[in-house]
Amino acid sequence: MNIEELSQKILNGDRRALARAITLVESGRSDHREQASALLADLATHRRQALRIGLSGTPGVGKSTFIESFGMFLIAQGLRVAVLAVDPSSARSGGSILGDKTRMERLTRERAAFIRPSPSQSHLGGVARRSREGVALCEAAGFDVVLIETVGVGQSETVVAEMSDLFLLLLAPAGGDELQGVKRGIMEMADLILVNKADGALKPVATRTCADYAGALRLLRKRPQDPEGYPKAMMVSAIEEQGLSDAWDEMQTLTSWRRENGHWDQRRADQAQYWFDQEVRQALLAKLDTSAVRGRMAELAANVAAGEQSPSAAAQVMLAELGAS
Amino acid sequence: MNIEELSQKILNGDRRALARAITLVESGRSDHREQASALLADLATHRRQALRIGLSGTPGVGKSTFIESFGMFLIAQGLRVAVLAVDPSSARSGGSILGDKTRMERLTRERAAFIRPSPSQSHLGGVARRSREGVALCEAAGFDVVLIETVGVGQSETVVAEMSDLFLLLLAPAGGDELQGVKRGIMEMADLILVNKADGALKPVATRTCADYAGALRLLRKRPQDPEGYPKAMMVSAIEEQGLSDAWDEMQTLTSWRRENGHWDQRRADQAQYWFDQEVRQALLAKLDTSAVRGRMAELAANVAAGEQSPSAAAQVMLAELGAS
Repeated sequence: MNIEELSQKILNGDRRALARAITLVESGRSDHREQASALLADLATHRRQALRIGLSGTPGVGKSTFIESFGMFLIAQGLRVAVLAVDPSSARSGGSILGDKTRMERLTRERAAFIRPSPSQSHLGGVARRSREGVALCEAAGFDVVLIETVGVGQSETVVAEMSDLFLLLLAPAGGDELQGVKRGIMEMADLILVNKADGALKPVATRTCADYAGALRLLRKRPQDPEGYPKAMMVSAIEEQGLSDAWDEMQTLTSWRRENGHWDQRRADQAQYWFDQEVRQALLAKLDTSAVRGRMAELAANVAAGEQSPSAAAQVMLAELGAS
Repeated sequence: MNIEELSQKILNGDRRALARAITLVESGRSDHREQASALLADLATHRRQALRIGLSGTPGVGKSTFIESFGMFLIAQGLRVAVLAVDPSSARSGGSILGDKTRMERLTRERAAFIRPSPSQSHLGGVARRSREGVALCEAAGFDVVLIETVGVGQSETVVAEMSDLFLLLLAPAGGDELQGVKRGIMEMADLILVNKADGALKPVATRTCADYAGALRLLRKRPQDPEGYPKAMMVSAIEEQGLSDAWDEMQTLTSWRRENGHWDQRRADQAQYWFDQEVRQALLAKLDTSAVRGRMAELAANVAAGEQSPSAAAQVMLAELGAS
């Protein structure tokens, strides 16, 4: 593969070249990895940036419909939109998000849109690096907005938040005290909470849900990267295409404020450092990532759980066997 | 040191022997470490358990006063109480918690109480292990309740929650929207939120604060380890010794329910496995813990933040230098 040629095509916005490049960064082969590194290093010199928007929400909140409606809205504003997914479970489920493209019928047909499902990798570290590289490729290809979707599985929300400029949490209306549980830390990661399905019979419930979350957000510590009044909770109806323009206004207000106050650049720099640190750590911990070691760890963990060995004593045994004590 | 004799004295509840043993587990000397391991292994065979209560709260919420009042209350119920602290900042600050024993004047004089400040270690991993071992020693010495105090610095709340059967969050009354920010995840860790200073002029504010947090707790996902209606937010006045009995009732209700439903044992087993896993990982990551490597990591991180190198490229350089690529 001619990397210079591929690079040039991507810079020209060639969608097939972009798709090929994403396949390249997703490959596990070491020669592909070298080519991918060379390609990314070359593209990075152009320093193109998109607005990276992370989007999380449990199944059933209407994520696909939101991406379709919001994507079409952005395209109508003259913007080019790429949609990627981070789904550590896709190796098991065969790709549970962005798999159902019938829900994004219009968006898939748009020239200004590019949709790519999650790489099939069970290891979140691997998914994270490939996803970051996919985002970088979309930025180089000149997309204005990159939407990065995740379903809230394990650490995937943190992974997406750490590669996004804005992080949106999509929720469904829920009655009374039976609100859907918001996972640990998720509210503090969100820049905007969007209560979807604020239409028809659900509208009153959505209004109450939105007020509840607005109240909960006020209980959180104000973050340095936010102007007064943020993060916010708002209502949208993806299916009726309501509230999208207001939500986009909020995203732009937040983005402009952060750019002007240096928080945009700071966040990108912090994220780059975070991923550097994570890659070093993950490589050092890779010793634990073989099936033999996982089996031995499970054995020792069972002893520890049964109270037969202290955590420290078992750890010493494992480290000795790894030649690392 | 005769470990058998020390062990026997601890089992007999000898406070000086307990203090010596804690000093032993806090020591960094390798011969001390071996003795400590032998002592802990011996004591573990007796399988004594206390109720371990983690307590977090930022400076100013009245933690010391609460520990004094609550400790005296427990002693009045005929219980023996040990108080330990986990404070990763104590190496810098010279011991910021439990340092001011004048606020625990009565408790320090009680025969049924044992108070020990945080070990002076800057490394949280080291603090965690020493603290866990301190808790185990107090359990072996026959204390009924072990209070483990932390100030909310970095990961210290997680560390304390992972060695506690119950985790309490102490808050001060705060007006309107200006409630003290609750850190990421902290509400999900708390089994009880106690709004302190519910006395005098602050009582109405405390009532409102308590209602706000009760509302926020209802937004969280119900946890399998909780019966209906938990976690709860309650008011206490440490200084007027109000609400302590109600709070203790809640703790006992929660504890009994968890014991009956297997969650108590499950949590202890999960925690032991967590610490086993953590110790193995920390040992593998110890390569990064020298000042030379920290300096080199900072250099590369600066390149990454400036956009001169990608996170992955910088990580490859670091790993090659560590001989781990």
